[in-house]
Amino acid sequence: MMEDKEQSLTPLEHFGEFKLIKHLTDSFEIQNESTIKGIGDDAAVLNYKDMQTLVSTDLMVEGIHFNLAYTPLKHLGYKSVIINLSDIYAMNARPEQLLVSIAASNRFPVEALEELYEGIKIACKKYNVDLVGGDTTSSTSGLTLSVTAIGTASKDDLVYRNGAAEKDLLVVSGDLGGAYLGLQVLERENEVFKVNPNMQPDLVPYDYIVGRQLKPEARKDIFELLKKLQVKPTSMIDVSDGLSSEVIHLSKHSGMGFRIYEEKIPLDPMVIRTADEFGINPVTCALNGGEDYELLFTIAQSDFEKIKGNPHLTVIGHATEKQDGNYLLLKDSDAAVELTAQGWDSFEK
Amino acid sequence: MMEDKEQSLTPLEHFGEFKLIKHLTDSFEIQNESTIKGIGDDAAVLNYKDMQTLVSTDLMVEGIHFNLAYTPLKHLGYKSVIINLSDIYAMNARPEQLLVSIAASNRFPVEALEELYEGIKIACKKYNVDLVGGDTTSSTSGLTLSVTAIGTASKDDLVYRNGAAEKDLLVVSGDLGGAYLGLQVLERENEVFKVNPNMQPDLVPYDYIVGRQLKPEARKDIFELLKKLQVKPTSMIDVSDGLSSEVIHLSKHSGMGFRIYEEKIPLDPMVIRTADEFGINPVTCALNGGEDYELLFTIAQSDFEKIKGNPHLTVIGHATEKQDGNYLLLKDSDAAVELTAQGWDSFEK
Repeated sequence: MMEDKEQSLTPLEHFGEFKLIKHLTDSFEIQNESTIKGIGDDAAVLNYKDMQTLVSTDLMVEGIHFNLAYTPLKHLGYKSVIINLSDIYAMNARPEQLLVSIAASNRFPVEALEELYEGIKIACKKYNVDLVGGDTTSSTSGLTLSVTAIGTASKDDLVYRNGAAEKDLLVVSGDLGGAYLGLQVLERENEVFKVNPNMQPDLVPYDYIVGRQLKPEARKDIFELLKKLQVKPTSMIDVSDGLSSEVIHLSKHSGMGFRIYEEKIPLDPMVIRTADEFGINPVTCALNGGEDYELLFTIAQSDFEKIKGNPHLTVIGHATEKQDGNYLLLKDSDAAVELTAQGWDSFEK
Repeated sequence: MMEDKEQSLTPLEHFGEFKLIKHLTDSFEIQNESTIKGIGDDAAVLNYKDMQTLVSTDLMVEGIHFNLAYTPLKHLGYKSVIINLSDIYAMNARPEQLLVSIAASNRFPVEALEELYEGIKIACKKYNVDLVGGDTTSSTSGLTLSVTAIGTASKDDLVYRNGAAEKDLLVVSGDLGGAYLGLQVLERENEVFKVNPNMQPDLVPYDYIVGRQLKPEARKDIFELLKKLQVKPTSMIDVSDGLSSEVIHLSKHSGMGFRIYEEKIPLDPMVIRTADEFGINPVTCALNGGEDYELLFTIAQSDFEKIKGNPHLTVIGHATEKQDGNYLLLKDSDAAVELTAQGWDSFEK
């Protein structure tokens, strides 16, 4: 049975390199006027007229950034796109094009790459971005994805990391810590599975946080909401490495200190419950966990009325003078803890 | 002695991810007006005004695209840039920005990545391109490089693969087959070295072709020459996979057939001599070897006078009706051989 199944799969060398790219990307449709020429020449051709162009890139390596034991390839393709779109939204810009390069060993059949591109395609459709290029090659081991996203914004709309001013409010979208805890659940179930392969994991009680890990979203809605509310953040970054690390980035680039309040950090009930189950502090998950892909930004106090009460946005602190440093004010005491960048680092052992 | 040397090297985890990128790219200077913001925010910001934007990307994997036994890391960095710039020149456009992502296993010390970036930097300076982004991450094994190049051209200057018309002349820059034969020499010497590590290879008699393999150049000079001569090719591609494969690309995209003449294919004397030494036909090296990074293009017959006699350019054939197919006309007979795409394919076993 297994053999039959394997015989029906197509080895990567069945297509040549050019035909494989064409095969995988043929059904992608162009959605942006700025895309003059997509895949199929030496380079893609884009036309932005007077807009400024944004470019962001990320590399994802099997065994470092993802584990295929519990990551469906379709989700991996989707997530690889989301990570890059999130960087473009974090500049207050609109993503429009995408380049995806993939290196895969011979253990992956063509059908595996089709799954991966299916996820990429769904993300492209949902976020209205055009796949305009990429490279597909073999590797000696494992799967590596390199994704580059390109976007546009008018000069006036662009938001860098460096514009926060004293007393600006620090705001975060959604909630934090979920993606990290989702990963803990998946890794625990994977260990159980290794011991007893007949055990079916019940992930239903963890659906929200597992979803945050495997199929995150980029906050296009927040980008659009801010436009609608006529709020232009003074500085912005996306939360990919944990709140603590991102606050420090804003602090360094803006030359400001930050004070954040423990009781304000938005946490989903499932995050609190699961953190409790693992015996860790949910706030630590929010501070150091990463991969939440929420937007963290500062706004002038005068814009507070515009965002007040919005369920997607939480004011978690404010900017101070630089020499005041970056501190978390604890909820049940007068104590303050200095923020340190303990975000995820692929080079750490 | 060896131990001493190794102890003085810096493990990758010495820097965090952010500091490593900063450390490796701090000395890169911005050279283009269009580069508004380089490394250091969520995305790079570029501004092209009314120009069209070109993007090209390539992935290079250790063990597939390069062998570090005989590839100095500085050369590898240089070459990874060249490959992408060549794609932009092949659109008759000017490269301006670059993104470089690297995944490296722990066997690479920081000094190895410094070497790699030194090569990238030399290429950036020589070709006036700005490094504006990238990602540095660890891998479970080996070294992977992903490079994306961005360029500009006015709409009128852009040259696609699809513009060749019947009777247009097919022109190639420089000479062909050298990079492939350089690789054969390097692989032979590597085998000798494995058997007898005290044997020092003498690469001097092969300097040109080994240079073509390890440190190729992109034909910026041809891009500039064509502008100066006021020749706009009707179609163009760069020779990365062998002449045969590239002619077929132009044929498919332009809906034309091509006839090329064996005796016209430009071959360096060292290519002829080394091919003879290896017992292979030098024309086969030109047709199927690849990695020469020359420009292959078509021009209207009326432009012939402008390029005639130029030592960098050789007319090797012409476009015919599509149904005539793509043929190589042999020099010592009336025979013609149909061109097939036997270019290098990373998925082939």
